[in-house]
Amino acid sequence: MTKRSYRLGDIASELGAELRGNPETEIEGLATLQAAAPGQVAFLANPSYARYLSDTRASAVIVSPSVADQCPTNVLLLDNPYLGYARLSHWFDPAPVPQPGVHASAVVDASAQVSRSASIGPQAVVEAGAVIGDNVVVGAGCIIGARCNIGEQSVLRPRVTLAHDIILGKRCHILSGAVIGSDGFGFANEKGAWHRIAQLGRVVLGDDVEVGANTTIDRGALDDTVIGNGVKLDNLIQIAHNVSIGDHSAMAAMVGIAGSTRIGSHCVFGGASGVAGHLNIADKVHLTGMTLVTGDIREAGVYSSGTSADSNRQWRKNAVRFRQLDAMARRLKELEKKIEG
Amino acid sequence: MTKRSYRLGDIASELGAELRGNPETEIEGLATLQAAAPGQVAFLANPSYARYLSDTRASAVIVSPSVADQCPTNVLLLDNPYLGYARLSHWFDPAPVPQPGVHASAVVDASAQVSRSASIGPQAVVEAGAVIGDNVVVGAGCIIGARCNIGEQSVLRPRVTLAHDIILGKRCHILSGAVIGSDGFGFANEKGAWHRIAQLGRVVLGDDVEVGANTTIDRGALDDTVIGNGVKLDNLIQIAHNVSIGDHSAMAAMVGIAGSTRIGSHCVFGGASGVAGHLNIADKVHLTGMTLVTGDIREAGVYSSGTSADSNRQWRKNAVRFRQLDAMARRLKELEKKIEG
Amino acid sequence: MTKRSYRLGDIASELGAELRGNPETEIEGLATLQAAAPGQVAFLANPSYARYLSDTRASAVIVSPSVADQCPTNVLLLDNPYLGYARLSHWFDPAPVPQPGVHASAVVDASAQVSRSASIGPQAVVEAGAVIGDNVVVGAGCIIGARCNIGEQSVLRPRVTLAHDIILGKRCHILSGAVIGSDGFGFANEKGAWHRIAQLGRVVLGDDVEVGANTTIDRGALDDTVIGNGVKLDNLIQIAHNVSIGDHSAMAAMVGIAGSTRIGSHCVFGGASGVAGHLNIADKVHLTGMTLVTGDIREAGVYSSGTSADSNRQWRKNAVRFRQLDAMARRLKELEKKIEG
Repeated sequence: MTKRSYRLGDIASELGAELRGNPETEIEGLATLQAAAPGQVAFLANPSYARYLSDTRASAVIVSPSVADQCPTNVLLLDNPYLGYARLSHWFDPAPVPQPGVHASAVVDASAQVSRSASIGPQAVVEAGAVIGDNVVVGAGCIIGARCNIGEQSVLRPRVTLAHDIILGKRCHILSGAVIGSDGFGFANEKGAWHRIAQLGRVVLGDDVEVGANTTIDRGALDDTVIGNGVKLDNLIQIAHNVSIGDHSAMAAMVGIAGSTRIGSHCVFGGASGVAGHLNIADKVHLTGMTLVTGDIREAGVYSSGTSADSNRQWRKNAVRFRQLDAMARRLKELEKKIEG
Repeated sequence: MTKRSYRLGDIASELGAELRGNPETEIEGLATLQAAAPGQVAFLANPSYARYLSDTRASAVIVSPSVADQCPTNVLLLDNPYLGYARLSHWFDPAPVPQPGVHASAVVDASAQVSRSASIGPQAVVEAGAVIGDNVVVGAGCIIGARCNIGEQSVLRPRVTLAHDIILGKRCHILSGAVIGSDGFGFANEKGAWHRIAQLGRVVLGDDVEVGANTTIDRGALDDTVIGNGVKLDNLIQIAHNVSIGDHSAMAAMVGIAGSTRIGSHCVFGGASGVAGHLNIADKVHLTGMTLVTGDIREAGVYSSGTSADSNRQWRKNAVRFRQLDAMARRLKELEKKIEG
Repeated sequence: MTKRSYRLGDIASELGAELRGNPETEIEGLATLQAAAPGQVAFLANPSYARYLSDTRASAVIVSPSVADQCPTNVLLLDNPYLGYARLSHWFDPAPVPQPGVHASAVVDASAQVSRSASIGPQAVVEAGAVIGDNVVVGAGCIIGARCNIGEQSVLRPRVTLAHDIILGKRCHILSGAVIGSDGFGFANEKGAWHRIAQLGRVVLGDDVEVGANTTIDRGALDDTVIGNGVKLDNLIQIAHNVSIGDHSAMAAMVGIAGSTRIGSHCVFGGASGVAGHLNIADKVHLTGMTLVTGDIREAGVYSSGTSADSNRQWRKNAVRFRQLDAMARRLKELEKKIEG
């Protein structure tokens, strides 16, 4: 891991930040306000952390103009400090950058087209007719099915599986263990036994899509499963066949979207929330964690279901009453009649 | 991808359908009623789609006899059109069909028995004593543990892992990333520390079992984990050690079954539902999505729990009241006493 | 699979158990009380199984002193019979034990340090600067990222992925499909579009950590994600970036812990429970299955949320009333005012 070092002045100009302080300050890393050591840049995005500002040992802090005066060290002024941190983070990423070329242990079909600037890692498999774009990274142990098309600059971390005929846009980022294009769960019943339906559709990912570790996205039954531009999916998510997700929607881990549901753009779904099949969800819908959606949502807004943790002793009493809730409501109505009647 | 083309008359006779129309019509694909182009077959299974029938451009439609007259084009008459579609779908499956033989990059132990008609994909591993039946497909990057036995015509998609001593019946279909035979989660506690218990049982799958992408099925602690014939498991499902699942039960994605629970046959579990450990669930039990089962279910039927999404503003008020539910019930009782005296 | 056979007297002395019976009895396996055949050892840990004691065909039973007299055969007396069973289970584990050495098909970077007693399985990849300790087993198809450090006697089952710079303590046990060190889910928003934040932290596992099949543990954004000594994680769990888990906590399958949450030691979380981000959970907190935690928990104890399954017919009535709960509470209050004046 090579040590990286940058001039603070160069960082400022690259981020488009106004620098108040010494441009010659040498920067070797990023850290939180609390943990930062000299030579590191910190940032203040969440106002509740402002209390750490005065004691920070960071050599510079990315802040918004409103709090610049409270900072005891060099400042980088940005209206969106968190975005500045996001951009700067890549300068210090220790993840190895693979060299272009096909590793000797990889198995690449003669009919596949692999850009000379692409990297195909050890033990990877690239099947017939696949097209691997410029500067693409296919990590160790990845399997790229027949006729897949991977757009330029996309990165597949180790051990990603793409089934056949999967389309990835540019700059996609697919994490280890993800499976894209597995068969949708479709069966016809005949006298109690299930007959499998071949899944003839594809999965089509737009540009700048993130797919988390061990997430699964099923191929469509007849039409395609479609993931819009800029969609971000966390780990262990299930996207069923023929789902479509609008641009720039983001889903936390363990979300499940059942078959043929259409999700709008700019949605944010909390962890382990789920949406039943064949529904339409509007743009800008936010679900809190573990929410279950069983009907269309037509308006932007925040939606929730369930209850949150209570001591088991209290909870048991209340959960028993949940089963009596309709009876309670009828009894309440009855009392109202008697009294008001 | 070779273009496939079939005579409509041949399709009809293979499906056992009565054809009303021109048997010489050439068919090159399958599509929905709405999306079908000339040369394609569509189907009508769900009556709510009947409104698309009159405008379809499909060259033929699989329908039940009752709606045949509404169809403007060739019809294939079947009592169960969805089953006809399921059967026909395989004629048009673009998934590559691997050739028999062992890929040069695969590692196959000398003591393994691999049928000459089986296909072992690139980078696959087959360990000592494994038996791979006739026409089995072991996809790229699969790992078949010691002494596994895979029944004829089973297909393992790329990157499936079978631990040692796993038994698969005939015609099983295992999707990428599935792990069958991982160690059950068993520990003995000694003064706060956990001691791992070796898991000595196996996993035994019947015939025609489907296991979804990234699904995990743990091996038994002493006895086996048993998955019945025709069971269909979707993606990201967890089947714990010593579970048994009866024939032809189907589970949607993200279902979890805890240890030693016995599930009946012909059950259907909605997505993300869960069943606690050491329970017995009768035949023909349906769970709706996200349902939690904490006790035995002795009768067939539909079961549910939880609540579904509401606006966060409304939900918060109601969720707070859930914590007061027992107190409310007592107050209601008190009022009734006073009034009814 | 070699047949293993041990003298009962040797088993007793190894377990530190008092033997009542014949030390020359030959033992060839372990089984439950109900299923045991002659030549096998059974155990009685759960008092509700005591009814099977009198009819067992086991050649010996591990029991606590209090029930020894009810046992018709040889007994091994231990205060914690379940722990005795846990220890003995490893004597009969049929899992193949890999030989030391690097398989010819593995790809090991020249700069990696691999102990001569370690085993690197077929098709595995070990990247630059990784350190593999004594007696470590790296299973088939595993990928060990750059500069990882794996402590002695740790076992990685086939097809585990460690990203770069991951630290494992001694005697860890990582099951197939687990992904450790995938990028945390961090993005900065700019005018509706998400910008990825490079995840610069590591994942650090203590000693004796178990990680289940297809479980994902994300690397930290700036600081590390930390898993304490003796922590046991079941399958399909999600641990987000910068989470820390205290020593000897155990989590059943499908648990999700959101980013930056700190879990105490000796916690036990039931299946599919979830904890929101940036929370603190005390030591010795137990969550029942599917519980959702959205606030800090400051005291040890058992916590729950949600409801459990009811017939769908009953449930629908009650779930509708849940949406009216706040209104019901107000109406109840109103009635009380009227009556109690």
